[in-house]
Amino acid sequence: MQMPNERPFDLLNNSIGQLVLIRLKGNMSIRGRIVSFDAHMNVKIENAEELEDGELKTKLGTILLRGGNIIFVAVV
Amino acid sequence: MQMPNERPFDLLNNSIGQLVLIRLKGNMSIRGRIVSFDAHMNVKIENAEELEDGELKTKLGTILLRGGNIIFVAVV
Amino acid sequence: MQMPNERPFDLLNNSIGQLVLIRLKGNMSIRGRIVSFDAHMNVKIENAEELEDGELKTKLGTILLRGGNIIFVAVV
Amino acid sequence: MQMPNERPFDLLNNSIGQLVLIRLKGNMSIRGRIVSFDAHMNVKIENAEELEDGELKTKLGTILLRGGNIIFVAVV
Amino acid sequence: MQMPNERPFDLLNNSIGQLVLIRLKGNMSIRGRIVSFDAHMNVKIENAEELEDGELKTKLGTILLRGGNIIFVAVV
Amino acid sequence: MQMPNERPFDLLNNSIGQLVLIRLKGNMSIRGRIVSFDAHMNVKIENAEELEDGELKTKLGTILLRGGNIIFVAVV
Amino acid sequence: MQMPNERPFDLLNNSIGQLVLIRLKGNMSIRGRIVSFDAHMNVKIENAEELEDGELKTKLGTILLRGGNIIFVAVV
Repeated sequence: MQMPNERPFDLLNNSIGQLVLIRLKGNMSIRGRIVSFDAHMNVKIENAEELEDGELKTKLGTILLRGGNIIFVAVV
Repeated sequence: MQMPNERPFDLLNNSIGQLVLIRLKGNMSIRGRIVSFDAHMNVKIENAEELEDGELKTKLGTILLRGGNIIFVAVV
Repeated sequence: MQMPNERPFDLLNNSIGQLVLIRLKGNMSIRGRIVSFDAHMNVKIENAEELEDGELKTKLGTILLRGGNIIFVAVV
Repeated sequence: MQMPNERPFDLLNNSIGQLVLIRLKGNMSIRGRIVSFDAHMNVKIENAEELEDGELKTKLGTILLRGGNIIFVAVV
Repeated sequence: MQMPNERPFDLLNNSIGQLVLIRLKGNMSIRGRIVSFDAHMNVKIENAEELEDGELKTKLGTILLRGGNIIFVAVV
Repeated sequence: MQMPNERPFDLLNNSIGQLVLIRLKGNMSIRGRIVSFDAHMNVKIENAEELEDGELKTKLGTILLRGGNIIFVAVV
Repeated sequence: MQMPNERPFDLLNNSIGQLVLIRLKGNMSIRGRIVSFDAHMNVKIENAEELEDGELKTKLGTILLRGGNIIFVAVV
């Protein structure tokens, strides 16, 4: 299988310190500043906020988010 | 197990820079331009749009989509 | 564990270029011509059609279908 | 861990060419003649029939059934 | 990680030829005589009976039960 | 990744022969005396009781509980 | 794949002995003091409390929480 030089995880690498919106399974979203990530897509987020229908629901502070629940990470 | 020279992931490889429609579990679809992918079917999508019943719901910009949620990728 | 010389994936190998009906989790079916497959049962399908209750719902064209969602592949 | 010489997959090995009833997740059953199987419990079935509440629902012909959806295989 | 000499699978090993009750995901139970098992907790059961709310629903005969659906195995 | 000398599984190791309460997926709990465990969190429980809303529902005797269904193990 | 020196699990490492709030699948939360963790995100929690809609539901004492059910760990 031939793959391009660009890789999907580059998006995470280039987003360190930036705001991202992460959609999770079960109709839940997290918005915050990405601090670090690993190969399982586990991510550490600062100033994390839980959103419901695009509205702020809870301020979560700094969190470790498990990669397995992620549907997508969007650059804000 | 004997397999043909052509491989399913060739579809992704040949779609770099092109529009694709990605159906996800949970009745959600993403349309956008595929930038890169990896062996887990994680894909980076530019100009990503979330669709509901074929209609535009949200513009997402550039996203990293986790392969595990994908049902199929269709060439548009 | 002793296994016969015939292997289940031979069905896919012998169906290259032929029509198959693929039943997916979540009451969805795909009908089309199988182009290629890999060891995870990921399949590339040409002239793919999404069926609901046996009726054509959407023409999808060429798709990469993720093996993990497949219940069975039937030779048409 | 000590295990007996007899192994569960022997049931499949001894059922080649015979009728089996396969219960799947999601209240679905398949009846047919087992042709081959592999270590993931993927099975090739001839004269496969889909059953609902024990009644014939659809004749499927020859199918490749993904092992991951199986609850049990019963010798008929 | 230090673990005791006794291991959970010993229960299966010591139950060969005996009656067990197996609770499965999705509110289903199987009662029968355990013939063999493997490291994935796949088990071959003789005189298997499907139970619903503790009452006999269907006689299944000899079955191969996939370990992944098991919640627990109880010695009867 | 640096990890402390203390490890989560020590809780199981130190609970051999003691009463534990195990919460499972699907709103089910098991209470009993832990006999042994393995690296997959499979546990053998003696005098196991199934609880519903904290009340005794069924006496199960000795069981092998599959680790994959466990949410948490609490020392009673 | 290039990754930063900081890693997501550092959050757990730096939280030993501190209060955390752990959101689980199925609308359940656990609050308590983190004692240890492993590479599967299994965590040992002291003074664990089960919360429902942010209110205390049950005091659980010391628990071993399976990593696979975790959505996120928040530093309190």
